[in-house]
Amino acid sequence: MKKPRELKVKPIKNGTVIDHITANKSLNVLNILGLPSDQSKVTIAMNVQSSHMGNKDIVKIEKRELASSEVDQIALIAPKATINIIRDYEIVEKGKVRLLNEIKGLLKCPNPNCITNTIEPVTGRFYVIATEPVILRCHYCERLMEEAEIESQF
Amino acid sequence: MKKPRELKVKPIKNGTVIDHITANKSLNVLNILGLPSDQSKVTIAMNVQSSHMGNKDIVKIEKRELASSEVDQIALIAPKATINIIRDYEIVEKGKVRLLNEIKGLLKCPNPNCITNTIEPVTGRFYVIATEPVILRCHYCERLMEEAEIESQF
Repeated sequence: MKKPRELKVKPIKNGTVIDHITANKSLNVLNILGLPSDQSKVTIAMNVQSSHMGNKDIVKIEKRELASSEVDQIALIAPKATINIIRDYEIVEKGKVRLLNEIKGLLKCPNPNCITNTIEPVTGRFYVIATEPVILRCHYCERLMEEAEIESQF
Repeated sequence: MKKPRELKVKPIKNGTVIDHITANKSLNVLNILGLPSDQSKVTIAMNVQSSHMGNKDIVKIEKRELASSEVDQIALIAPKATINIIRDYEIVEKGKVRLLNEIKGLLKCPNPNCITNTIEPVTGRFYVIATEPVILRCHYCERLMEEAEIESQF
């Protein structure tokens, strides 16, 4: 029977390419970005070979640039991710996500007795105490939070 | 700055291309197939233009052929999907998913009082009473089940 055609993925005119995502974490990245959504053209490649990282994921989104709070969340899931912003077929900005020393408001503490989980309106606040893998410590109750717990929130 | 490179998606040597998936339903298809999983190379394109369907999704999986129960589940989510099996760079089989008249064992009835949800070990059984969109009727309690309820199970 005939040869399969190549699945063509054309360069995008305007949008964002998130590269060097930790292998198999692209769906968490989509969750952070509220994708899939109605008309958004998105391409995802999982477990692509990478000379730097062994395997990696790539996500390409047309007509979308990321908010800094979105980039901060991606850093928690994929600390080596790079963000390329494309306008009119050219990369106009190229950057790495950066894991902050302190994470405010993005995550909930998994300790049910933590003050942030009581009726008081206290926003989650964590210190990054390790990066590979990511481990956070709650500012309020000092509970440690590991990768799987972080991922389950995205 | 420099031009972005094309995201190259090479033809696969062995595997499956699921084409003509209902737009934005590719993540449900991944769920059915238990993906992402460790070493599986998967490419997904969401909201690709299609001459037949307006928009569609495409999923390409290396080194994987589908079980017939998986194909039956995909039919519930994406009734127009086509499955191309590739061996040694050639399409060796090309088929459409087919929505059966009767669905056995793949779904749970959403009616909590249905006999299939009591302690009795009775397998779910549904009749397909409409296809666009899919509507099913439980064999036991006659409760209708619409698309959103079907999708929430995958």
